[in-house]
Amino acid sequence: MLSVMLKMTLQHSEPDPQFILENMFEAVMDNIFLLVLVTLLSVVQNVFFALKVEKECTGQHSKPHSAAFERLSCANRNCMDTYPTFLAVLWCAGICLSQAPAAFAGIIYLVVRQKYFVGYLGQTCQSTPGFLFGKRILFFLSLMCAVGIINHLMLSYCGSDYKEYIQTITKAASALLLLP
Amino acid sequence: MLSVMLKMTLQHSEPDPQFILENMFEAVMDNIFLLVLVTLLSVVQNVFFALKVEKECTGQHSKPHSAAFERLSCANRNCMDTYPTFLAVLWCAGICLSQAPAAFAGIIYLVVRQKYFVGYLGQTCQSTPGFLFGKRILFFLSLMCAVGIINHLMLSYCGSDYKEYIQTITKAASALLLLP
Amino acid sequence: MLSVMLKMTLQHSEPDPQFILENMFEAVMDNIFLLVLVTLLSVVQNVFFALKVEKECTGQHSKPHSAAFERLSCANRNCMDTYPTFLAVLWCAGICLSQAPAAFAGIIYLVVRQKYFVGYLGQTCQSTPGFLFGKRILFFLSLMCAVGIINHLMLSYCGSDYKEYIQTITKAASALLLLP
Repeated sequence: MLSVMLKMTLQHSEPDPQFILENMFEAVMDNIFLLVLVTLLSVVQNVFFALKVEKECTGQHSKPHSAAFERLSCANRNCMDTYPTFLAVLWCAGICLSQAPAAFAGIIYLVVRQKYFVGYLGQTCQSTPGFLFGKRILFFLSLMCAVGIINHLMLSYCGSDYKEYIQTITKAASALLLLP
Repeated sequence: MLSVMLKMTLQHSEPDPQFILENMFEAVMDNIFLLVLVTLLSVVQNVFFALKVEKECTGQHSKPHSAAFERLSCANRNCMDTYPTFLAVLWCAGICLSQAPAAFAGIIYLVVRQKYFVGYLGQTCQSTPGFLFGKRILFFLSLMCAVGIINHLMLSYCGSDYKEYIQTITKAASALLLLP
Repeated sequence: MLSVMLKMTLQHSEPDPQFILENMFEAVMDNIFLLVLVTLLSVVQNVFFALKVEKECTGQHSKPHSAAFERLSCANRNCMDTYPTFLAVLWCAGICLSQAPAAFAGIIYLVVRQKYFVGYLGQTCQSTPGFLFGKRILFFLSLMCAVGIINHLMLSYCGSDYKEYIQTITKAASALLLLP
């Protein structure tokens, strides 16, 4: 009986790398799949914007620089200019702190962007705001990054881990983004 | 002899974190190095495009807004506009599902982009298509992301894992991208 | 006494997945928090650029296309055009090789970009250089990526690991970026 126990122990004791790595992959996916989803949605939206611009462009072949086309093209450019910034902040916030509030903020950003694009009324492309819409959301995501880094440093150097509290607070705070 | 076995067991049983972490790093690199390679190639291509535009610009100092320069500059802008989208989809697809087909699609995208840039004949910058080339590839990569997420959710909630099958199918399907 | 030892062994031997995963998360954060910090700084800089352009634009409402606005807008566009490339190379270099030199190069890039933006004197937007500034830094980061991939391949196929040496060399080499 002792030998059986020993065997079992031996079997258990070898930390099967394959098993751990598969678990690891699952854990990684668990921590990012919402971010991937939001990224995918934003890509679909980008394609939608591009198709709109293209349609407007080819539809008015006779008068190439119509006001409507200018407007759409400018709104598209403004959206595209902030896109890398948005992606970078979204992923950093999601990885550093927690993915659910980050993904939620990302979804709201996409809604705001859609509204901005559809209702864009800037006459010409003079105003390159780009950061005009979704300022609050980008600020929220940046704050999440910063808090995540500070928490990590505190954990490394002071040994105190407030992650649980911070995540709870962040989840509550993300609801504030719904305020108009 | 029993004490030796016990010792061995004890030695084995401690899951050496350093060892696991190093293994982990290796595993991560194994899963992304093709994506890094494609990203690197795309960066080299970006620099190539920018140098072309710059050369055309400085070479024709007398007539700054020549047709050739306009064309190159516009092709470059269209390529740059889709670049963040391409990168996002490439990495998401590679991480969520499997890197080999994603990297393969990425390489084809780069080839298509090169062809597009060299043979660009749009007279002016009116048409901002950007997504005109490589539509199929972006769609394929987005599909890979979506399938990866769905598979992950099914694995979490239903406990059924079709990853092996999906990866095989994806690898076969990626060959279809070679069709003209 | 033997049973106690066995018990201990058994307790030890189960590789607690929760513990490993938490360790894993810490390890990941350890390896990327400098990159996140640089990304965050670059986002802040982007917002600063956008606000400058916006201020210049709204401040001169009477003459919308003044030279100063044109200049700022063009500098902003050039910076934004290279931004995705910069981010991609920064993260790849940081993940493939080591984060400290990559983050250091990233910081220098941000400083160079700031200088470029503030002192931009290109009259019109004809010259889309974008890669004109920080060429050396982007080259350094790309080299880091390439070396990281080559090292990984050599480790996989030849079994020789020069990572320690390469990281030391990289750290020393990153100081060369400070040369004017």
